[in-house]
Amino acid sequence: MERSSPDLQAAAAGVLLAIGVAVACWAIARRGRKSGTSPLAGIRSLRGFEPEEVLKDEDDGRVVTFLGRFAWQKEGEVALVKLIAKPLSLSGLKDNLSRLSVRLKSESGAEYAFYNCSMSLWHTFLRGLEGNSYSLEVVAPASERTVNRNRPVTTAMLTETAEMHASVTGPHMDRIVGDGKSLSWLFNVLSKDKEAERVLYEDEDPEHGFLLNIDTKWRTHPDISTVPRHEWEGHPSVGELYCLAISHQRGIRTLRDLRAKHVPMLKEIYGRGVETIEAVYGVPEDQLRVFVHYMPQFFHFHVHFTRLHNTIGVEAERAHLLVDIIQNLERDSYFYETRTMQFRVRENDALHTAFKNAGEA
Amino acid sequence: MERSSPDLQAAAAGVLLAIGVAVACWAIARRGRKSGTSPLAGIRSLRGFEPEEVLKDEDDGRVVTFLGRFAWQKEGEVALVKLIAKPLSLSGLKDNLSRLSVRLKSESGAEYAFYNCSMSLWHTFLRGLEGNSYSLEVVAPASERTVNRNRPVTTAMLTETAEMHASVTGPHMDRIVGDGKSLSWLFNVLSKDKEAERVLYEDEDPEHGFLLNIDTKWRTHPDISTVPRHEWEGHPSVGELYCLAISHQRGIRTLRDLRAKHVPMLKEIYGRGVETIEAVYGVPEDQLRVFVHYMPQFFHFHVHFTRLHNTIGVEAERAHLLVDIIQNLERDSYFYETRTMQFRVRENDALHTAFKNAGEA
Repeated sequence: MERSSPDLQAAAAGVLLAIGVAVACWAIARRGRKSGTSPLAGIRSLRGFEPEEVLKDEDDGRVVTFLGRFAWQKEGEVALVKLIAKPLSLSGLKDNLSRLSVRLKSESGAEYAFYNCSMSLWHTFLRGLEGNSYSLEVVAPASERTVNRNRPVTTAMLTETAEMHASVTGPHMDRIVGDGKSLSWLFNVLSKDKEAERVLYEDEDPEHGFLLNIDTKWRTHPDISTVPRHEWEGHPSVGELYCLAISHQRGIRTLRDLRAKHVPMLKEIYGRGVETIEAVYGVPEDQLRVFVHYMPQFFHFHVHFTRLHNTIGVEAERAHLLVDIIQNLERDSYFYETRTMQFRVRENDALHTAFKNAGEA
Repeated sequence: MERSSPDLQAAAAGVLLAIGVAVACWAIARRGRKSGTSPLAGIRSLRGFEPEEVLKDEDDGRVVTFLGRFAWQKEGEVALVKLIAKPLSLSGLKDNLSRLSVRLKSESGAEYAFYNCSMSLWHTFLRGLEGNSYSLEVVAPASERTVNRNRPVTTAMLTETAEMHASVTGPHMDRIVGDGKSLSWLFNVLSKDKEAERVLYEDEDPEHGFLLNIDTKWRTHPDISTVPRHEWEGHPSVGELYCLAISHQRGIRTLRDLRAKHVPMLKEIYGRGVETIEAVYGVPEDQLRVFVHYMPQFFHFHVHFTRLHNTIGVEAERAHLLVDIIQNLERDSYFYETRTMQFRVRENDALHTAFKNAGEA
């Protein structure tokens, strides 16, 4: 007792010092946080958030969006909180396989077994809680528009006869195209004032000519400004291949405006497109899906080229294979003008409303 | 520091306690586990597993399959280990929102902010590591067939002319259909010896008649044996609606065999199908996609009815809208017999090999 009391005093002093340092660090960190530009920069837990409604439960429960409010929000304001389960990090996972602890759920008695499995508590303590984490997005205050954009999208199938196309869809498209200003970004691409470095092939003929571009949806494409073109062939990103052919001819708003006279252009787009893609990326024709959207996102003729397992926008009620389009026009120049077509729109999209007003949806 | 200093002290105490408890649990669990029927029942960590290759990295990195071997396996044996990130549990999440600790990643300076976020160490300790967990499947020993089934599927687009259909695809289908035994399960459904309780509508005419059934792919359908039919209307599972119409007429192997004479049957299937689905489930026509597969999974005529946002098998090179098929046959009875069609097969599928041998793939 007598002997250890000086040690005890030193230990007590040490503990006091440690607490002091911890408090100081905490205060500094907290001040750092307080200097953020919105209250959102300062939150360090979701304690002050009161969830009111689950807006969306997506991707098999891996993304959940809550509507609610933070205690510090003004009366009448709401907030969105979106939790995203983090994907497994392949490299992290490989290195940490041996640190996973495992609890048997069921087994076949032979070669199959199923477990729950988690980073052991000890390794969690050493590594921090990375494994036990979500990505989190918060929007506060959330405007009504933001809230609505985060509600599930309800879509409806429209069944558009030739008559409805002439009387409702046509005027709707003409309103959107208007004086052509909404397509000026596209004309800049066609004149190569913009995105010239993304052009893979060009036929400059104003009638049947077109540009083949790297679509901006192909996010994993090697950096165009730093990776030389000969290194694009066989690049790992060709799995996500997405190219776009845009015709120089103006005035073809959609599939419906195509006629037999456009067949040579369509064949040229198909042929040069697959040829160029094989030459640049080493991806052969039988790995590609070549198609046109109806309804398209903008009203100037364009053709999508994607790798087979890239399934964005390939639904039967939206994607029309170019091989089919060519055959249909060869048989009947007015094939697409005269038929009934089904396609999908968001409910309360302007076109859906127009169909409703015409008593057709 | 910023994140964990208050948690650290609690955690240190927790860890000490945990070690004691864990050792006791481990001893008890180990005794229980030893009685398992395969070595797989006894593993409690992945320490003995040596990963050799990543076979698959699916679903945005949320499912990863490793090929490798366990130390206890025989020479030459391999094992598959498949880790699946667990979805967020909505109920658990809602109750535990206030226990999540949050670290700012970036913010817009206004209403948007992005964080990393995890259960606090303290609450992890109290709740167990549920949040920090994966589902895990293990197959050991894994046969070559199992290993191959877990490799990425490579598919190829076949471009099938009418001639190739007659000379290659036709004989291929006839080989599969053979003496009809491979379709006996289907004839049992049509005769209502099997699955009679899944029938939603029947037209018994042997020529133009058909059954409308609840497809077995609709896994969330209310239990047919316990939930009375009047409770199916508006049931939450109608979001995953999947029904199947199967014709009584035999011999229509695929779309290619359809002729103008089949149009009345097709119209009947479309009309009665959407009518029945609206009556039973309350899902209207404009929420449905009605389509036929080419190539189909079995060679007897059938029509898929799915809810719009159910996107299984809806790719343009596979799904053909019934509304289009009807119009095409009305214009030309031989529309589908005479045209070139694109569809996708697994590489090295028997049909792909047959096309290759014919010099067409």
